[in-house]
Amino acid sequence: MTEQTNNANSYRVDLGDRAYDIHIEPGCLDGIGEALSTVAGDARRCLVVSNETVAPLYMERLRRSLERAGWRVSECILPDGERYKTLEIWSKILDALMQARLSRNEPVLALGGGVVGDMVGFAAACYRRGIPFVQVPTTLLAQVDSSVGGKTAINHPLGKNMIGAFYQPKLVWIDPETLRTLDERELRAGLGEAVKYGLIRDAEFFLWCAGHARQALDLDAGVLSILIHTCCRHKAEVVMADETEQGMRALLNLGHTFGHAIEAMTGYSEYLHGEAVAIGTVMAARLSGQLGYARPDIEGEIRACYEGIGLPLEPPRFEADAWLDAMGHDKKNIGSRIRYVLLREVGDAFVAEDVPSDAIRTLVASFD
Amino acid sequence: MTEQTNNANSYRVDLGDRAYDIHIEPGCLDGIGEALSTVAGDARRCLVVSNETVAPLYMERLRRSLERAGWRVSECILPDGERYKTLEIWSKILDALMQARLSRNEPVLALGGGVVGDMVGFAAACYRRGIPFVQVPTTLLAQVDSSVGGKTAINHPLGKNMIGAFYQPKLVWIDPETLRTLDERELRAGLGEAVKYGLIRDAEFFLWCAGHARQALDLDAGVLSILIHTCCRHKAEVVMADETEQGMRALLNLGHTFGHAIEAMTGYSEYLHGEAVAIGTVMAARLSGQLGYARPDIEGEIRACYEGIGLPLEPPRFEADAWLDAMGHDKKNIGSRIRYVLLREVGDAFVAEDVPSDAIRTLVASFD
Repeated sequence: MTEQTNNANSYRVDLGDRAYDIHIEPGCLDGIGEALSTVAGDARRCLVVSNETVAPLYMERLRRSLERAGWRVSECILPDGERYKTLEIWSKILDALMQARLSRNEPVLALGGGVVGDMVGFAAACYRRGIPFVQVPTTLLAQVDSSVGGKTAINHPLGKNMIGAFYQPKLVWIDPETLRTLDERELRAGLGEAVKYGLIRDAEFFLWCAGHARQALDLDAGVLSILIHTCCRHKAEVVMADETEQGMRALLNLGHTFGHAIEAMTGYSEYLHGEAVAIGTVMAARLSGQLGYARPDIEGEIRACYEGIGLPLEPPRFEADAWLDAMGHDKKNIGSRIRYVLLREVGDAFVAEDVPSDAIRTLVASFD
Repeated sequence: MTEQTNNANSYRVDLGDRAYDIHIEPGCLDGIGEALSTVAGDARRCLVVSNETVAPLYMERLRRSLERAGWRVSECILPDGERYKTLEIWSKILDALMQARLSRNEPVLALGGGVVGDMVGFAAACYRRGIPFVQVPTTLLAQVDSSVGGKTAINHPLGKNMIGAFYQPKLVWIDPETLRTLDERELRAGLGEAVKYGLIRDAEFFLWCAGHARQALDLDAGVLSILIHTCCRHKAEVVMADETEQGMRALLNLGHTFGHAIEAMTGYSEYLHGEAVAIGTVMAARLSGQLGYARPDIEGEIRACYEGIGLPLEPPRFEADAWLDAMGHDKKNIGSRIRYVLLREVGDAFVAEDVPSDAIRTLVASFD
């Protein structure tokens, strides 16, 4: 946390001809129409994709803003939840794009959380080999992480986010006021992902998150603003340095190798993504200690922070082989080796590809 | 046809960090193992995808070459035909990739014609957000056109190639001897696509094709070599100038706006792609004449060439509204306007976006 950046409203994610802005402003949902006109040229039609939970809350406001700016709006409503992040539901978005007859220059908007954003982004990447898309994230997790950076995907029965594309949005439009309608469990999960930036690259921000969890859960506007701004700045910096995850972007996967395995083993229906990642991060911290990379008490510090947020911390019980099998299908695995993000210290993470399976067996057993 | 290029074996498609070679050599199928090792680093596993027609002919040779070079080979066999270029069959390739547990650096090979190449390329683009892929085209159409340039796709019930990605192969490996087992109807369709380069940018090559159709159909090795080399050189030049079809690459779609409509209206089962494009090119030539862009007798010259090849020339009978509707769904349509590639002269094509629907009605009526 090198500076507080809650004065500016925007960050530029500078990726050459794929550059775009992240705009963060309370109430900005009502300004999406004009904003879309600035990034989508002279197109006049768009498709808004949302889910059954978010659409009743915000679709009409979005539509009014878009129509005021002269847009013709089609809609597509998906079922809500990670277990619907499938090829089958994804194909419904493609059907809606085809039925709306969107042309190559006409944009699609993702109104919702990470699942909607990932699926719509991937549909935008593939429909007519790529049309513009705009992220309008309404969950904390999507606002602090998944809406920025162009990772789009759907799940495969054998592994999370295994089918997808690197495809950047033309705009990320964040209205923190949408968090007022967010389920508190979702809010906690989002805070867990925010903490991740602290753990991998900003020790000061980790402490700040631990100290402001209560205010964030109480939806203190100032705290949420600092939180979202700081996370978006970190995410933008990492993505600009390594758009397609050849190197440092992999650090953002802290807790995700274990976390994705947890989601897959439990059928994408028991844990929210942010919850699984929190548990996975506890496991990664303990593994870092067991392998001698980090102080043993780093796990306790992370647990204390997550407890303040109210996140689950104990991994579900599965045999070590089930863990290894589920992680072997994780796409971050290169050449059959499983990649783990480990910690040296709070704020200092690295990728390890040479963790022996026995170490994972020991780790899993230590949670019994 | 500025030069004969049948001396060299390779063309470089120079697209910066997405550059790759097109290798053309009789018998080179037996050398794919070593070639793959040069483009896929230290990976040791691969998946070969083919179809029920091609696999019995060439899979074993490919496998032997790969295994000699130390590759562990998995296989995936698809049904044969354009009507299987669907989301459902595409997902079988994804299942095979998941089951083979290919990592991010392990390649997939497409052994077959344009359908296999397009589907495998699109699966390679999406699996783990992109893995290396290699084209091993075994039909003339794939060898002269679809295997080069990175257009990958599947069909949607409402339009051809509507779901896909620009995703370049790491290598295109062309063995002209595979044409010996090709159905003659497929050979004719491939020749039709070859003629296209003559029509849009090389009048001399158009005349050469017309004069050598018989020898090509008789599988004269020298003629096929010149044919494939010339087409690959043209395709590489166009793709290097305009990888993602912002401009001149659109000219390669001559005959395709009508052709894709023909394929869609007939359920992707009556015409081969090259046949539909030949008919579509006759329609585009007549339209060019009717609108005053070209000499009226240009249509006759093109018909004479296609007749020598033995291609169908008469469009199927549909109402003008059905044509317009089918073409409105074509992905080259921008901002609701339908884009047509028209001719000024043999060797000189351009994109027209302002063709009124009445002109299409007149055109369709003129074929009654």
